[in-house]
Amino acid sequence: MVKVSIIGATGYTGRELIRILLRHKEAEIIHLSADIEEEVPISEIFPSLMCDIPVKKAINMGGLIESDVIFLCLPHRVSMEHVPSLFDLGKKIIDLSADFRLKDPSVYEEWYNTKHLAPHLVKNAVYGLPELYYEKIKTSLLIANPGCYPTSAILGLAPVIEFIEKTSIIIDAKSGISGAGRNPSFLFHFPEANESIKAYSVFIHRHTPEIEQELSLLAKEKIGVTFVPHLIPMDYGILSTIYVRLKEDVDIFDIYNEFYKNCPFIKILNDPPRTKDVVGTNFCLINPLKEKGQLVITSCIDNLIKGASGQAVQNMNVMFGFQETEGLI
Amino acid sequence: MVKVSIIGATGYTGRELIRILLRHKEAEIIHLSADIEEEVPISEIFPSLMCDIPVKKAINMGGLIESDVIFLCLPHRVSMEHVPSLFDLGKKIIDLSADFRLKDPSVYEEWYNTKHLAPHLVKNAVYGLPELYYEKIKTSLLIANPGCYPTSAILGLAPVIEFIEKTSIIIDAKSGISGAGRNPSFLFHFPEANESIKAYSVFIHRHTPEIEQELSLLAKEKIGVTFVPHLIPMDYGILSTIYVRLKEDVDIFDIYNEFYKNCPFIKILNDPPRTKDVVGTNFCLINPLKEKGQLVITSCIDNLIKGASGQAVQNMNVMFGFQETEGLI
Amino acid sequence: MVKVSIIGATGYTGRELIRILLRHKEAEIIHLSADIEEEVPISEIFPSLMCDIPVKKAINMGGLIESDVIFLCLPHRVSMEHVPSLFDLGKKIIDLSADFRLKDPSVYEEWYNTKHLAPHLVKNAVYGLPELYYEKIKTSLLIANPGCYPTSAILGLAPVIEFIEKTSIIIDAKSGISGAGRNPSFLFHFPEANESIKAYSVFIHRHTPEIEQELSLLAKEKIGVTFVPHLIPMDYGILSTIYVRLKEDVDIFDIYNEFYKNCPFIKILNDPPRTKDVVGTNFCLINPLKEKGQLVITSCIDNLIKGASGQAVQNMNVMFGFQETEGLI
Amino acid sequence: MVKVSIIGATGYTGRELIRILLRHKEAEIIHLSADIEEEVPISEIFPSLMCDIPVKKAINMGGLIESDVIFLCLPHRVSMEHVPSLFDLGKKIIDLSADFRLKDPSVYEEWYNTKHLAPHLVKNAVYGLPELYYEKIKTSLLIANPGCYPTSAILGLAPVIEFIEKTSIIIDAKSGISGAGRNPSFLFHFPEANESIKAYSVFIHRHTPEIEQELSLLAKEKIGVTFVPHLIPMDYGILSTIYVRLKEDVDIFDIYNEFYKNCPFIKILNDPPRTKDVVGTNFCLINPLKEKGQLVITSCIDNLIKGASGQAVQNMNVMFGFQETEGLI
Repeated sequence: MVKVSIIGATGYTGRELIRILLRHKEAEIIHLSADIEEEVPISEIFPSLMCDIPVKKAINMGGLIESDVIFLCLPHRVSMEHVPSLFDLGKKIIDLSADFRLKDPSVYEEWYNTKHLAPHLVKNAVYGLPELYYEKIKTSLLIANPGCYPTSAILGLAPVIEFIEKTSIIIDAKSGISGAGRNPSFLFHFPEANESIKAYSVFIHRHTPEIEQELSLLAKEKIGVTFVPHLIPMDYGILSTIYVRLKEDVDIFDIYNEFYKNCPFIKILNDPPRTKDVVGTNFCLINPLKEKGQLVITSCIDNLIKGASGQAVQNMNVMFGFQETEGLI
Repeated sequence: MVKVSIIGATGYTGRELIRILLRHKEAEIIHLSADIEEEVPISEIFPSLMCDIPVKKAINMGGLIESDVIFLCLPHRVSMEHVPSLFDLGKKIIDLSADFRLKDPSVYEEWYNTKHLAPHLVKNAVYGLPELYYEKIKTSLLIANPGCYPTSAILGLAPVIEFIEKTSIIIDAKSGISGAGRNPSFLFHFPEANESIKAYSVFIHRHTPEIEQELSLLAKEKIGVTFVPHLIPMDYGILSTIYVRLKEDVDIFDIYNEFYKNCPFIKILNDPPRTKDVVGTNFCLINPLKEKGQLVITSCIDNLIKGASGQAVQNMNVMFGFQETEGLI
Repeated sequence: MVKVSIIGATGYTGRELIRILLRHKEAEIIHLSADIEEEVPISEIFPSLMCDIPVKKAINMGGLIESDVIFLCLPHRVSMEHVPSLFDLGKKIIDLSADFRLKDPSVYEEWYNTKHLAPHLVKNAVYGLPELYYEKIKTSLLIANPGCYPTSAILGLAPVIEFIEKTSIIIDAKSGISGAGRNPSFLFHFPEANESIKAYSVFIHRHTPEIEQELSLLAKEKIGVTFVPHLIPMDYGILSTIYVRLKEDVDIFDIYNEFYKNCPFIKILNDPPRTKDVVGTNFCLINPLKEKGQLVITSCIDNLIKGASGQAVQNMNVMFGFQETEGLI
Repeated sequence: MVKVSIIGATGYTGRELIRILLRHKEAEIIHLSADIEEEVPISEIFPSLMCDIPVKKAINMGGLIESDVIFLCLPHRVSMEHVPSLFDLGKKIIDLSADFRLKDPSVYEEWYNTKHLAPHLVKNAVYGLPELYYEKIKTSLLIANPGCYPTSAILGLAPVIEFIEKTSIIIDAKSGISGAGRNPSFLFHFPEANESIKAYSVFIHRHTPEIEQELSLLAKEKIGVTFVPHLIPMDYGILSTIYVRLKEDVDIFDIYNEFYKNCPFIKILNDPPRTKDVVGTNFCLINPLKEKGQLVITSCIDNLIKGASGQAVQNMNVMFGFQETEGLI
């Protein structure tokens, strides 16, 4: 059994991670911590979990030393305060924050408006999208688990990146409100957010450089995207509707099916998917449709599972040589 | 045109009050104030309103002096700080808070856990439920506008109060979340409140003594009720499901129809009503069903309209001799 | 008082139309009809309406002859069966269906897959978007009331049409589910539609040629658009997120404010609007944002009001010389 | 591995049952059937399932003969057409319908308005509520899996049945709309059901005799209840708010904790539970509160899991001697 610690266990990604790990045949949670006022069993914070492991107020180094893998479910900026010392312990780390996703620390510093605290470790991090980086993940010690929007957008675009005009990429993304985290604010107050939809962070959302980096790597040239996220009155799920122009006429379904033929969590559909069909799962459902050179790709995931904690466990499975789907069915 | 001021214009009840008054042929809003940081047009706070009246940071006595009627959309405790001086001005006052609803200040002090600041004015206040107190409202200078839960419960029970066992009254009430007001908190954070239902304040909700007072007055004996409110994942609407035992076999529909025959906002239905059919209206829809001496009454209103601002305008209409439905169609 | 008949009164657009007309100072409903099994007061079908006018099973020619204006709230195909005879009566007609929106009957026949039954009347119809065709509407006898998606899209694009690249127009639209009408089906079954989002009718939605026609007229050249609508788990509201490339650097807010300076229902905002702020109103809220030549316009309306019945009354107001906002505040 | 067949696999209870069984270490699905037009993999009907087992159009006797246990996810009336022949095969049967829950076939025939087709088998059926009938379930060949409302109501009342007045039981239940099944109808059309709440089947819901039967067995005297279900605008979850009068003053938390001390899926809380905390789980969360002899019990479950498919697997676990929580964490 792989011994697991989770730092930052009391947010939504922590909750989902624990739920998945409780079903995992090869993993055992040995340590939970979070920034809380007093130690309580995790089931008191999340009554839906059948698990009474205590959540420690402070990180317990003893617990970490016994761990084989450590998940960080922390906000960006906070995560990179912890990673260097954990990395020095030689443990495998899966970081769900944004801190090690961007390969150029100066881009990170610009978009996240903060100094990077461990730029020397960035090169050690592997972007944890197993559909693209399976081999690298197998041997990695530090996984930068992808953002939710980037997961849906990159998986939707990767197969066709070489066939499209690079200047025309528009990603109109729609997310359920759990993506905003567990802290209340006016924007997410029920009578304000319910029965409404709005765009936000137009041109300036922090997932933009992450999407651009990965598409640029795939295309082997610098790519910019127009990315506009929207808030949808539902708990879970992301749908990215992606608009690109094809450079040539290709058999689009062939391309997608071939690209993902070994990927158990990707399904290519003939019709646009519903987020309802991915909620609670680690699936990414994708539908590409074309007309007169215009390609419209719809790609959807559960923002907390394939967009966060499920993908983190998928990465763990790859790192430890488990069945890729273990715990995720 | 009746000149209207609203104090506390930036909450949900303020918004609904303004919306209704903008449609009212006999009323004109001349002054808005609220506890805000800087003066802005009300349309900036509520873009849905076609109204650019500025919201003043402080109450403008000049504005109030010109007013014929002043609506207070303030939290309890705050309202009674203002009422005495306004009352001395001789203006008509419609107070949407709980401060003048309870006829015994000591009951108020017990349930609201605060000293009453104007106990001498309590006797001047008329409980503003026009279906019961139409004549008194006509000549009143100070209206204590009823609470949302009490409105649905009292209207549901009033016609049969003399025919039921007084010890058996159970009110299971369900409310949309706008009832919680405009300030965000964890309980009303969208991903927490959505797709969920819960009971709250079991036995201790502050609307309990208000319901008991009015039922006792109707019954001419002291009545206690079991009142349990619930949060429902929707914006607007209250449904009260009321359980009582009949003392005798009576024609229940006759009783309800006769009792409310002159009340334009009450409809007695043959089947249980939906809150959807009252949202946006000043209606109270009621359905009484009986079997073997058990009576189940379902009564529903829009919590912000018949349960607050609509009823406030209905009271104004009665006070000024306007058509009772003016502005409320 | 203008005398009004409504044919097809029992759908969602009929309900909203009646609600608005009941508040209208200059209009009186004299006749309602619908395809129903037996005559009932409209308040039995829609308990939220304070109105007991009977809904006739068949169109009553007598009622129509007394009318000054007739609203058709019928499905496409059905509407054009009625329009010719009503037109011959010389009455003003406001048709909420799609039957007279497209100026080329062959385009209509292609997209709606049915023969046009009154192609000779198409030239008499004015596209009822008062922000664009105010003068024509004033003297029109037959208004083709715009579709909901086209209203939001065209109003969002009209001011900048001359400044953008005509080949780059992408409209990603999101609609509440009342847009699907009142007939149940699997796609709109609550447990299927709730907590989910999906794209539908990609490339093939029937509002596409309507948007293209109006943009082409504005641009004085043939324009095609990529239009993708989505279903959002909420009752009311449409948000169109529109992506275009600017041909030159212009002061975008100046352009919008100038274009709509006399339009009481259009507001240009500095930030992306929420559908919540237009639900229940006839407003269209618009926010244009640009970066590096890319323009992102968000435009939202209530699909049943500015997108249907509210706009229909706005057209009536223009036709009869009433205040443009009468009944719509 | 226990071999499992599911008849009626394409409804919501079938979907949840498959999802749970895919995670079950000791069970293997070998046969699915449903009343569908052509054979398709179950993943085509439910894309959220990682499972390509075909759904047969007709029950495959071969498949059933190989099975160790057969789950029937059929409507009432249909289920009892199949049970006799399956019972004769000597296989274990878990019937999720209502057909074998009522011990008196004449009560069944009255409430379900249909002739019972296998009254001789009723005595062989065990009511599958493991918290009450664990020992009987262990050796049963035919489980009548309880209804969703009865599960929440009976579990809420069982511990205190001997301490309460038997004439005073009121159960006000609230359910998410998945309880209505997968067939669309006007009542469950999204724009009708969303943002609304209503009572239905007052006094006449078919779960009433099931609740009364089980409470009567517990109390060893005939008990009647007032049961009023409500529709809540959410997908999953049931909350029963139960009102009873205590005969004596007892330590209510002691009673509940003691009664359920060996039940892994029951949690007694100090505060009223939220349905959100049971959705996706097999938990029943219960909170009892008393004041002046009045007891208010709130009890909540996921209607499709503890209220249907989860409980069915819990029963299977007990029948086969597996860990009671297997597959249900």
